[in-house]
Amino acid sequence: MKKIKKRSDCPISSALDIVGDKWSLLIIRDIAMQGKNTYNEFLKSDEKIATNVLADRLSMLEWSGIIAKEEHPDSKAKIFYRLTSQGIDLLPVLMEILLWSDKYLSIAPQAKEFAKMLRRDKEGVIKQMSKSLKKK
Amino acid sequence: MKKIKKRSDCPISSALDIVGDKWSLLIIRDIAMQGKNTYNEFLKSDEKIATNVLADRLSMLEWSGIIAKEEHPDSKAKIFYRLTSQGIDLLPVLMEILLWSDKYLSIAPQAKEFAKMLRRDKEGVIKQMSKSLKKK
Repeated sequence: MKKIKKRSDCPISSALDIVGDKWSLLIIRDIAMQGKNTYNEFLKSDEKIATNVLADRLSMLEWSGIIAKEEHPDSKAKIFYRLTSQGIDLLPVLMEILLWSDKYLSIAPQAKEFAKMLRRDKEGVIKQMSKSLKKK
Repeated sequence: MKKIKKRSDCPISSALDIVGDKWSLLIIRDIAMQGKNTYNEFLKSDEKIATNVLADRLSMLEWSGIIAKEEHPDSKAKIFYRLTSQGIDLLPVLMEILLWSDKYLSIAPQAKEFAKMLRRDKEGVIKQMSKSLKKK
């Protein structure tokens, strides 16, 4: 795992030292929004993360306390990755990114529908998602 | 400038294709929160961005419509970078990152104070900041 180098004391910079790369937030999205929890499921995501990058990011996210490893409920051979409270609390960041995309990029109708719902009741949607992730 | 490669149709991934690296959001922070608007001011930030990375990121952010170049009001020799509406609308993302840092990382007292104010009236603070950035 690459070591995290703290670039400054700025709180935004410090958070980006942990999740400010092109992949970490996508792994968090996979767990939070796409019901993915295993190494192979992450590998199969549309963005096609490379195996070495995925392994590195998973170690780093675990080390930072954003995800936690558990035995998979269906198979002892598989590892189940879940978001910790610290990881679940990144949901508002993901949701704001999604709303920005909805406003400025061309996105799929299904995502547009979700963004509409989110705009109507951001707090409620995030609360509901957090609750269901905590149950897992 | 490196070409932006769209990794998938996911709205979160598409936004991260543009600003999901360790530096872009810090340049946006510099303009939005630290009153910095020139190449040399960005270079002097605590995180010590490399000149080639800064030049690349500025081109990319301009190309994506997040920042715009203008003649500097004080000197014709300098370029003044401002956030466009599209850039200003990334403020909620920055603010959620800051709130997450406040909750989980150790941050400076001044940043803690700001986070407290933000928690009290997130919408109001973002509105006020946006208004003052639009004026520039």
